[in-house]
Amino acid sequence: MGNSFGSLFKISTWGESHGGGVGVVIDGCPPLLALNEVDIQRDLDRRRPGQSKITTQRDETDNAEILSGVFEGKTLGTPIAILVRNEDAKPEAYEHLKNTYRPSHADFTYDAKFGIRNWQGGGRSSARETIGRVAAGAVARKLLDETTDVEVIAWVSQIHDIKADVDTENVNFDEIEAQITRCPDTEASAAMVKKITEAKKAGDSLGGIVTCLIRGVPAGLGAPVFDRIEADLAKGMLSLPATKGFEIGSGFSSVLMKGSEHNDEFAPGEKNPITKTNNSGGVQGGITNGSEIIFRVAFKPTATISSTQETVDNENNPVSLEAKGRHDPCVLPRAVPMVEAMSLLVIADHWLRDKSVRVLD
Amino acid sequence: MGNSFGSLFKISTWGESHGGGVGVVIDGCPPLLALNEVDIQRDLDRRRPGQSKITTQRDETDNAEILSGVFEGKTLGTPIAILVRNEDAKPEAYEHLKNTYRPSHADFTYDAKFGIRNWQGGGRSSARETIGRVAAGAVARKLLDETTDVEVIAWVSQIHDIKADVDTENVNFDEIEAQITRCPDTEASAAMVKKITEAKKAGDSLGGIVTCLIRGVPAGLGAPVFDRIEADLAKGMLSLPATKGFEIGSGFSSVLMKGSEHNDEFAPGEKNPITKTNNSGGVQGGITNGSEIIFRVAFKPTATISSTQETVDNENNPVSLEAKGRHDPCVLPRAVPMVEAMSLLVIADHWLRDKSVRVLD
Amino acid sequence: MGNSFGSLFKISTWGESHGGGVGVVIDGCPPLLALNEVDIQRDLDRRRPGQSKITTQRDETDNAEILSGVFEGKTLGTPIAILVRNEDAKPEAYEHLKNTYRPSHADFTYDAKFGIRNWQGGGRSSARETIGRVAAGAVARKLLDETTDVEVIAWVSQIHDIKADVDTENVNFDEIEAQITRCPDTEASAAMVKKITEAKKAGDSLGGIVTCLIRGVPAGLGAPVFDRIEADLAKGMLSLPATKGFEIGSGFSSVLMKGSEHNDEFAPGEKNPITKTNNSGGVQGGITNGSEIIFRVAFKPTATISSTQETVDNENNPVSLEAKGRHDPCVLPRAVPMVEAMSLLVIADHWLRDKSVRVLD
Amino acid sequence: MGNSFGSLFKISTWGESHGGGVGVVIDGCPPLLALNEVDIQRDLDRRRPGQSKITTQRDETDNAEILSGVFEGKTLGTPIAILVRNEDAKPEAYEHLKNTYRPSHADFTYDAKFGIRNWQGGGRSSARETIGRVAAGAVARKLLDETTDVEVIAWVSQIHDIKADVDTENVNFDEIEAQITRCPDTEASAAMVKKITEAKKAGDSLGGIVTCLIRGVPAGLGAPVFDRIEADLAKGMLSLPATKGFEIGSGFSSVLMKGSEHNDEFAPGEKNPITKTNNSGGVQGGITNGSEIIFRVAFKPTATISSTQETVDNENNPVSLEAKGRHDPCVLPRAVPMVEAMSLLVIADHWLRDKSVRVLD
Repeated sequence: MGNSFGSLFKISTWGESHGGGVGVVIDGCPPLLALNEVDIQRDLDRRRPGQSKITTQRDETDNAEILSGVFEGKTLGTPIAILVRNEDAKPEAYEHLKNTYRPSHADFTYDAKFGIRNWQGGGRSSARETIGRVAAGAVARKLLDETTDVEVIAWVSQIHDIKADVDTENVNFDEIEAQITRCPDTEASAAMVKKITEAKKAGDSLGGIVTCLIRGVPAGLGAPVFDRIEADLAKGMLSLPATKGFEIGSGFSSVLMKGSEHNDEFAPGEKNPITKTNNSGGVQGGITNGSEIIFRVAFKPTATISSTQETVDNENNPVSLEAKGRHDPCVLPRAVPMVEAMSLLVIADHWLRDKSVRVLD
Repeated sequence: MGNSFGSLFKISTWGESHGGGVGVVIDGCPPLLALNEVDIQRDLDRRRPGQSKITTQRDETDNAEILSGVFEGKTLGTPIAILVRNEDAKPEAYEHLKNTYRPSHADFTYDAKFGIRNWQGGGRSSARETIGRVAAGAVARKLLDETTDVEVIAWVSQIHDIKADVDTENVNFDEIEAQITRCPDTEASAAMVKKITEAKKAGDSLGGIVTCLIRGVPAGLGAPVFDRIEADLAKGMLSLPATKGFEIGSGFSSVLMKGSEHNDEFAPGEKNPITKTNNSGGVQGGITNGSEIIFRVAFKPTATISSTQETVDNENNPVSLEAKGRHDPCVLPRAVPMVEAMSLLVIADHWLRDKSVRVLD
Repeated sequence: MGNSFGSLFKISTWGESHGGGVGVVIDGCPPLLALNEVDIQRDLDRRRPGQSKITTQRDETDNAEILSGVFEGKTLGTPIAILVRNEDAKPEAYEHLKNTYRPSHADFTYDAKFGIRNWQGGGRSSARETIGRVAAGAVARKLLDETTDVEVIAWVSQIHDIKADVDTENVNFDEIEAQITRCPDTEASAAMVKKITEAKKAGDSLGGIVTCLIRGVPAGLGAPVFDRIEADLAKGMLSLPATKGFEIGSGFSSVLMKGSEHNDEFAPGEKNPITKTNNSGGVQGGITNGSEIIFRVAFKPTATISSTQETVDNENNPVSLEAKGRHDPCVLPRAVPMVEAMSLLVIADHWLRDKSVRVLD
Repeated sequence: MGNSFGSLFKISTWGESHGGGVGVVIDGCPPLLALNEVDIQRDLDRRRPGQSKITTQRDETDNAEILSGVFEGKTLGTPIAILVRNEDAKPEAYEHLKNTYRPSHADFTYDAKFGIRNWQGGGRSSARETIGRVAAGAVARKLLDETTDVEVIAWVSQIHDIKADVDTENVNFDEIEAQITRCPDTEASAAMVKKITEAKKAGDSLGGIVTCLIRGVPAGLGAPVFDRIEADLAKGMLSLPATKGFEIGSGFSSVLMKGSEHNDEFAPGEKNPITKTNNSGGVQGGITNGSEIIFRVAFKPTATISSTQETVDNENNPVSLEAKGRHDPCVLPRAVPMVEAMSLLVIADHWLRDKSVRVLD
């Protein structure tokens, strides 16, 4: 349990950072969708380490192989299994971590739960696990592209104390991808690069915020009660490594508003009512109202740093952990496709679920 | 779909604010747990409207009846069905809302999804739905009380711009319950009462923050990947009405820290390593580390207010919505048992799931 | 776990034979379906004890109350909770069974699993639990009636050694209901009544077979692999009390045929291919082919009899169990609506699931 | 949906007979179980075609690769992904089937459901899909071997009209494996070989029955209501290709017994009550009573035969289907490990589920 996400567009990821590989099985993708490995590779390349000077240098190409579910370029409606082999296997590089619990990593908690862990580079808790999610997200994107007007884009809106100024109405994918930070505010982006480079030199790491915008969602997606669309988004985001917070629409700032200020009044739209403001973030009572969904995700600074840290070993003795090897000074640029993937999965799932609702009229 | 929560301690709620009643079925509560209606009523009374001068006056006693799953004062291991009848049924009080979409309510979105809604007082989107959750949470609390050291307490830490100063190490249930605000900082509480009273008079509403603390959680609860304990908590919280944000441990403030500042170094504890700081909020890699879990939930100001608002009717024509009837100026005090309930359900579920993990040694 | 059935048309039953009542929550019934208690009562009346001279005399009216999910005579798309109160509560009638394990009942196995059981009349293992299923089946029938050509009818095709001769092409509901045995072969039915009456007098019980026919199923329902429609039907049937076997189409008799005899050759139909024979029972590879689905379910003779039996008590001591009270000499007539209900639930579920499959073309 | 089985020991299979390969992801296998590819290969070898002169000659070695979830020879508690590459890819051998619906195959029904199918050798409906199940079953067997006394053995008890005489008390794995028929009655086995050889020559196919015996099951496994252990077994068995029937204990023959004959009287056992007879097949009310579980599964003659058959093409025109290529005259010997696998999966799942039941005492 715990390795699947979604109900009708359901994904199950598997794999450790070291060992045969990582991958995903997608169960529920409709048949007749044009799909090939190129569709998937684009997002995997945006996720992979080593894509720019400001990320970690783990040098893997992360090539996706589709093992099933596609025939003559189209999905069959059967499970789509995707495999990415592990390449960068240098177990000896991790030998010194065999008995040591790195601070703010999952070494101790995995041992506490399972009584065993793959100490080679994070094992299942490695961000490498997100390869399966990003691959599945690319399939969800293809499905939504073919069948809806939904567009999911995310960007880095803050790194440490540098906040970007982004015009959410007009921001587009190309602008974001043009920056190695994936922050479309060029000025802020430059400052971020500088800050990340400093952190890298200092052997330290930085956190930040990813903002995600979902345009073109029809009204009526989501569900009352537990599977509210914002609840599923929150779960998806907090299931990503290094996330510490989620807020939708007005989020935590709603606290300082009064009801009379916060309420999104309706006005007649072309076919449906539209809201004059969007404090709701596109969702009311767990169901989309046709406005854009907008939310923000907080990522802590990654736990791998290059300074010496005090910790304990697996026999509860104090030890000093020497810095070794590479570290990723800031995961934010690579987190963007992860946030997109989880969003795409949530929307695709609810969109398929919605097909079984209005069958009478 | 969408009305169940949990996997091994699974609840399914049902019911609209008007009609026969609301309730819950709990599937998976272990047998031989002492349980009766009094155990449940305590939390229902903390949730119900009309319990103090600062909440809405909907006057319902919300008496729980256990319909199944308990025999001679003990659980049977079979589903526990709990029913609370609706009493306050004055459909005529809602007649003017039949064709009107109230701003920031779920009227329009339910119509968009289902093509029909119970316009009598919110129907399924009413906060009355949370009765089933709170009742189930009380059962989860009983189970955890009997079998673990887990203690879940929540309090109001902010209303509008009034922030409480709370000693999280020592805060206790009685202190919290002593205040009608459920804010244990007496000074802040008094200011909150004043602010809420003003808002009530003005026909307006206020938002705020509930902080939740989970003590005594053993290390090793939770799961890698999608069912991370913080992901399940985030889903639980964002599934509550009027919530806009969730953060755990350092939360959004982690963004301003560096890895060297944020990492929770380990030190030898009595049996297990303990952390010197708790920026992680008790969870690493989705699994508890034995520290306290602490998180915060943002609630927007409730949508029902007493001033006139512009909106549209269900034929997309502009209308003015006149204020009528009662409103709840601030849902925060009543939100506390809801936040506790969802936390208890998440912990109980993962605690039961954990039983099937370490079966070899 | 274990008290829910279905994925999109999902039901959760609850309740013991003694205590507050029994019931069901249906999650996933589409909105805008006309529904009231009369729709449900018809099938509950066909299921209830005491409806004819050949069934047990437990005298309950089993009146269904819809507690939620219906508004102004139409479903809301929210959970439909249905409650049937227990009436016939005479716990003293069961006092002698408190410590005794009745042969071929679930008394011992419940104790083995749960360490506790409601010894008043079978508790959760009572056939009374099927009330929730039959009520839910009635809702599924209404849904399928409104939206498809599906017709589910079942009848008693054998009791003990008396086999009915039924023209499956023309058999109809009224013919079946005209017989208290629910066997449409009037001659066989008369012989069955005689046999059951003898068994009743002798304090003994009889088993039999229910045949179920599903007409009007479109081609393409079901799924490859685990959720084959025959697998879901088999699970549904074997989950009914007292069932010992399931066979579809040629069933166990297929064993005596060769491939060249058993294969159902296709011929051009009006729009789709049709099969010349139906050894497949309407299903190939787990998916319907448009032919009628036909299957048979074996029911053992019920365990409650009136002769003295040797058994043990809950301290593993031998005891003699004296016959007391009423017994049902043959459950078959009442099993018919149960078999129909489970079939309707399986078909409704797959029919809703199918809505999310062909979304591209 | 539809490609997963189990709740706590959950498997998801994927793959078509042609394309990259087939495989399975096992989610929920406990950590610290010794496991390697040899454990899995043994059962895969028993399942694969070409293992004896009486099976089809598709010549594949079906080598399993464990891609994740195992580290230094032990399970990690994370998903175990297993891959078996497809080798025997001769798409041209199937070109003539591209537009033709083979009788009693799933060609038409897949097209009806999905609008597309992999016409190269059955695709997802191929028995090759069961590789994933058998691999997962081998892991379940390892788990049960390490932690319980459960032993699952199955054998061929009938082929066409040849019935075996098997001493269920003493029959063992080696006796069964000594026969290429997997029928431990040597005389019957010889007759079966003769019959199969004749059918092979005639280009025809034969059905039969597999009997499965589960020894050493503790009392108390299973669940009331829908997840009765016999219901889960029935679903597992009817989800296997070519199955038409399932019966447990007395099965269909129970119909000819009276309650007084059928009831399994209890007698004091060593610790628990034992039954004098076992008409129940080891299960009462869906829960095991400590007796052996015994059930039978009917397999129809396989659909691929070598005579010319009348059928239609995918434009609903009549065509004659010429016999081509290899066929499997009798799937029964290879069905034995499939039946075992599904049984092992059901038992392992319920055994893990049971861990969360008796947590109070």
